Amino acid sequence: MALIVQKYGGTSMGSVERIEHVANKVASFRKQGHQVVVVVSAMSGETDRLLKLAKAIDPKGSQREFDQIAATGEQVTIGLLAIALQKAGVQSRSFTGWQVPIRTDGAHMKARIQSIEPEALLAACNAGIVPVVAGFQGITDDGSVSTLGRGGSDTTGVALAAALKADECQIYTDVDGVYTTDPRVEPKARRLDKITFEEMLEMASLGSKVLQIRSVEFAGKYKVPLRVLSTFVDGPGTLITLEDNSMEDPLISGIAFSRDESQITVTGVPDKPGVAAAILGPVGDANVEVDMIVQNVGADGSTDFTFTVARGDHDKALEIIKRVAGELGAKGVAGATDIVKVSIVGVGMRSHAGIASQMFKALATAGINIRMISTSEIKISVVIDQDYLELAVRTLHKAFGLEEKK
Amino acid sequence: MALIVQKYGGTSMGSVERIEHVANKVASFRKQGHQVVVVVSAMSGETDRLLKLAKAIDPKGSQREFDQIAATGEQVTIGLLAIALQKAGVQSRSFTGWQVPIRTDGAHMKARIQSIEPEALLAACNAGIVPVVAGFQGITDDGSVSTLGRGGSDTTGVALAAALKADECQIYTDVDGVYTTDPRVEPKARRLDKITFEEMLEMASLGSKVLQIRSVEFAGKYKVPLRVLSTFVDGPGTLITLEDNSMEDPLISGIAFSRDESQITVTGVPDKPGVAAAILGPVGDANVEVDMIVQNVGADGSTDFTFTVARGDHDKALEIIKRVAGELGAKGVAGATDIVKVSIVGVGMRSHAGIASQMFKALATAGINIRMISTSEIKISVVIDQDYLELAVRTLHKAFGLEEKK
Repeated sequence: MALIVQKYGGTSMGSVERIEHVANKVASFRKQGHQVVVVVSAMSGETDRLLKLAKAIDPKGSQREFDQIAATGEQVTIGLLAIALQKAGVQSRSFTGWQVPIRTDGAHMKARIQSIEPEALLAACNAGIVPVVAGFQGITDDGSVSTLGRGGSDTTGVALAAALKADECQIYTDVDGVYTTDPRVEPKARRLDKITFEEMLEMASLGSKVLQIRSVEFAGKYKVPLRVLSTFVDGPGTLITLEDNSMEDPLISGIAFSRDESQITVTGVPDKPGVAAAILGPVGDANVEVDMIVQNVGADGSTDFTFTVARGDHDKALEIIKRVAGELGAKGVAGATDIVKVSIVGVGMRSHAGIASQMFKALATAGINIRMISTSEIKISVVIDQDYLELAVRTLHKAFGLEEKK
Repeated sequence: MALIVQKYGGTSMGSVERIEHVANKVASFRKQGHQVVVVVSAMSGETDRLLKLAKAIDPKGSQREFDQIAATGEQVTIGLLAIALQKAGVQSRSFTGWQVPIRTDGAHMKARIQSIEPEALLAACNAGIVPVVAGFQGITDDGSVSTLGRGGSDTTGVALAAALKADECQIYTDVDGVYTTDPRVEPKARRLDKITFEEMLEMASLGSKVLQIRSVEFAGKYKVPLRVLSTFVDGPGTLITLEDNSMEDPLISGIAFSRDESQITVTGVPDKPGVAAAILGPVGDANVEVDMIVQNVGADGSTDFTFTVARGDHDKALEIIKRVAGELGAKGVAGATDIVKVSIVGVGMRSHAGIASQMFKALATAGINIRMISTSEIKISVVIDQDYLELAVRTLHKAFGLEEKK
């Protein structure tokens, strides 16, 4: 008998019918003899509706009060699911964040979980009762309701699994797992049975949005096995787990990409200490987040400096850099918004040489020009012209043997 | 400087605009130097919407979970009003039932308040913060959310006023006070400046629905001065207070009436001990509530027995009585559903003789036949044909001088 935490998102809670569907899933899981603790989100759209009401009064209103209001979305769905479970023959009891209690810091609207007291939930489990816990919320030291920020229900699920020492945390969503790449770009994309936390972090931050990044970090830190499954289609999903040294680990797990990229290049910068800081300091001061950074040493004692920012920040960053370039005596400044980033991700590349050249050769054969390269321990990213995005993804997907097996 | 509890109902919380209107009212009250604690209901229609969702899953679902769901309606409005107050320049903080805490028994959906810990609210008041408290809800001994049943926000307001030893509890609603009778029946009906708790109870139970009866009982028990006012029209409203022996007390405060009446008469019942119990016992066993009861002693050693029940219970009661009448050897049984009850209410009648005959004479002059009479210390009720309802109300309203003063 295993203890499983199951988290269902807003789409799964979207209507009375869907809530009853979830209740039946949980009931059949109980019949297999497992203990289950369920975490739920608000009905899809409900948190937005509530915050819109509050912002209609004052967009800059008290964040404590925004939380008081927003947290009601999950308080409704925990009650509804508990009723549906009882109707399905499963004893159940709903728990708000403060009823657990899930204690957080006082940073309203983006609170962090500090501790969870598991006694009440464990007592319920031992009495044969399935606890249904409100995701996304907690209670602060001064007794106020807090919320964890968008997507926080995933984090609640993982944190509960850690506190309860659960065997697995299952995140039910509207996709049936993590794929080698986006199936809308490469129809041959394959569901992964397994992926490591580190790979998942790289995949998620690069645009394959399945789970909230913070929940994956949390799961990795507390070593909670995490599984992504579909609420609507039965299947094993994808298990996100600690790296194991199985011989069968593929070299590359997936191809991630991001369209929200733009590039700024400063050419002919005098190559001396402090140049990078002089260029990027003012950009950071303007609250623009810089992603990739590449610097090449030139032959004439000058250097070329290139970095990427989100497209929405391009014009702002370019303006700053034009000013800075003048002060530094750089030769020129150029911007580009018609670029994208494509990455291969895999823990296998740690122990295998030649992955990078294999990637570049595949892209060259397809006639794709690489504008920028950046590497980390488990991923290699290239910046290319946006027109080549789909071709690049399909080329790399094939080159690394990620297709659906026959 | 007075401490005032103000309660605003669902209509007053019905939209963002109305919530801002209430915030401005509270703000101007604060500017007069008073301390204010606000109690609010959910937005009108919201509690019904929430319970409908729950009942769509299982109409007989767990009442604890129904409460968990229903209580979110007020949690939203306290947050919204706190934000609106801050925008209006008034420091404010929202409190759910459990945050106060307001402790109740465990009778979910019809819980009774057992105690209120006033420290947190008083601390807020003393710090210049206006607490906005969720009506209708509390917390049980086992940490579950409870609700007080429909209209419970009035009770929350009165209970808070008692716990805080407030100078007055103001109930803001969509009428501007308690009237001498229903203005839809008698356009000359006049707003009362003042009415006693006992009169208010008789008026309310007889169909002048302004306040939840329980809150009036509560206010009377704890001697909390209660005032009914309009959210939308400025004015002094009606003060509901302990009886004072002012010489200016009018004889009669108002004319109440009820259309939801039906009558059952048993004629020629042998006049011996136990007959009333034999007739009414089976009716009570069938969960039918009996209102007025009249028994006349006949000349031939038999008696006529008449009582009233709500119209919806008429057929059920008649069927029971037909069976009972046979067993008792009564002469006949008759029912009527085309009747109504009209009552005059006033503490003044305690010390004045002749009120009843004045009432009967006025009705006789207007050609209205009385079918049944029942009296208590502060009211006299008559049952008449329903066609005469409006005429009777207007006749009595005039006879006792209740018209609007010029």
